[in-house]
Amino acid sequence: MGGLHHVPSISGKNQSMTQLATSADWIAVDWGTSNMRAWAMGADNTVLVHGESPKGMGQLSPPEFEPALLEVVETWLDPEKVTPVIACGMVGARQGWVEADYATTPTAPIAARPTRAPVTDRRIDVFILPGVSQSSPPDVMRGEETQIAGYIAAHHGSSIICLPGTHSKWVEIADGRIARFRTAMTGEVFALLAEKSVLRHSVSTGGWSDDGFAAGVTVGLGEPDILTQLFSIRAASLLEGASAQMSRSRLSGLLIGAELAGTRDYWRGTTVALIGASALSTLYQTALELAGASARQFDAQDMTLAGLCAARSAMEDTQ
Amino acid sequence: MGGLHHVPSISGKNQSMTQLATSADWIAVDWGTSNMRAWAMGADNTVLVHGESPKGMGQLSPPEFEPALLEVVETWLDPEKVTPVIACGMVGARQGWVEADYATTPTAPIAARPTRAPVTDRRIDVFILPGVSQSSPPDVMRGEETQIAGYIAAHHGSSIICLPGTHSKWVEIADGRIARFRTAMTGEVFALLAEKSVLRHSVSTGGWSDDGFAAGVTVGLGEPDILTQLFSIRAASLLEGASAQMSRSRLSGLLIGAELAGTRDYWRGTTVALIGASALSTLYQTALELAGASARQFDAQDMTLAGLCAARSAMEDTQ
Repeated sequence: MGGLHHVPSISGKNQSMTQLATSADWIAVDWGTSNMRAWAMGADNTVLVHGESPKGMGQLSPPEFEPALLEVVETWLDPEKVTPVIACGMVGARQGWVEADYATTPTAPIAARPTRAPVTDRRIDVFILPGVSQSSPPDVMRGEETQIAGYIAAHHGSSIICLPGTHSKWVEIADGRIARFRTAMTGEVFALLAEKSVLRHSVSTGGWSDDGFAAGVTVGLGEPDILTQLFSIRAASLLEGASAQMSRSRLSGLLIGAELAGTRDYWRGTTVALIGASALSTLYQTALELAGASARQFDAQDMTLAGLCAARSAMEDTQ
Repeated sequence: MGGLHHVPSISGKNQSMTQLATSADWIAVDWGTSNMRAWAMGADNTVLVHGESPKGMGQLSPPEFEPALLEVVETWLDPEKVTPVIACGMVGARQGWVEADYATTPTAPIAARPTRAPVTDRRIDVFILPGVSQSSPPDVMRGEETQIAGYIAAHHGSSIICLPGTHSKWVEIADGRIARFRTAMTGEVFALLAEKSVLRHSVSTGGWSDDGFAAGVTVGLGEPDILTQLFSIRAASLLEGASAQMSRSRLSGLLIGAELAGTRDYWRGTTVALIGASALSTLYQTALELAGASARQFDAQDMTLAGLCAARSAMEDTQ
């Protein structure tokens, strides 16, 4: 899990706006629904400086993307040249800056041409990487394909990748291409149930029980009755006084277990490469081990940067 | 589906507060989370007049229940006597007026003693009917036991009852008792997904597609991968332009199908008695028929009133 890059956590806003602190050869951007991260990159793909912003795609209209980008990267721009900006993620969604294409499975993770975003500032040229779509069963990804490209560029290990999160992705790699994938709404369903449903009266906002999680995973893996198992969490809290930490952990385990039950044809008998936030990846590793599989963890940000570097190299090769 | 009682929809507030319009022998109350309905009953259990209020349990603190009740029923009270009020539903929950007991399965639907609610007005004596609990798997109901009592009092048909709703109940009756039951959070999960999740961009707030519903039921019944099937609705909308009506209907079918997959040991090879709102019961009937079972529908309000009448008779017998 060592970092591919040393990434200092300096906010763009903390940099002086009165002098050019850093001259980026190019700029890497990971622009998701809820926030944006950018890296000033050297010509040798070393990270010069890092910035970030809470202005995710979800709160911006198309004309607001360029100013939001410049707030973070302006001090990295050499006024004498045009700096390429390569972005991945939901910035390329239909509700984003400009809709980027999808490459269709089976496909290399970054295969379609990047889409140029409209800008008024002559110092930048912004490219948004394509997502990946699948026709049967219908599925889409935006952003994960870049992490997958980074994983493929740096590793020659598992052919099965899981990217746990709000919308978890399960991906099978064959010959360096995405053969097929599936999205599970596990993270979003967990948040809705824990915060908005009747279960909010029974689950804590923090704390943890390993036993509760393991029990939930076992139940979720075992039977296709998630809608009834969910209410059992409420009833156990009312009747047995199950603690709020226990209930929260059981809910998490139940949903991850149900996700594993639905994706068994991906992970059975294999070692899964987990690319995600460390705490969440550890939960998935635990659940996979309870299910008789195994897993290795990789840092999501490292994979994103490696994927953006691979995309940059591919663009230079075709210029 | 004919009504057991003729129930005029007269709001309590529309009645004159200056004269005693109706003298109730007793008052029947169905007090749920989001609203309250009350009926002035004659000694022969005919309905004299009906009232209702939007003041459900969910918005009241304990001292607010008595005034909320009186707003609806005050004109039905004879000042010269004490009128019994028999209430069922979430009014007896821990967050309600006063916590009522649970009877534990296997049990007659209304077996434990009603719980007296604290009142200051000497014209009323308020009894809250017990709920039913089950220890393994842990489960609870409040209100549905009264509808089940009404069904048992009036019918000698199916031994399997489904009460579809926010929290659907599946109930097996044996020898006039609740042998076992299960709750599925289908209605609440549907509302959260349709209104609060990423699927809100893809599903309509109204409209319907029978084909979409049937396709969803088939998928939900078939495979234990609901978390991935949910995201397919979003992807089909993005990639195939699936209409918002189609997506909404498919989501509904998928969840009801998943509920049926998890409750197959209740409905397989039987005729299910559906007690619920007419439109929702029709969806469940369609889904059950797609799954090879059959169903008959019964009006929920009729069953509630019949159950409250049965409880009133039982209380008189023991006085």
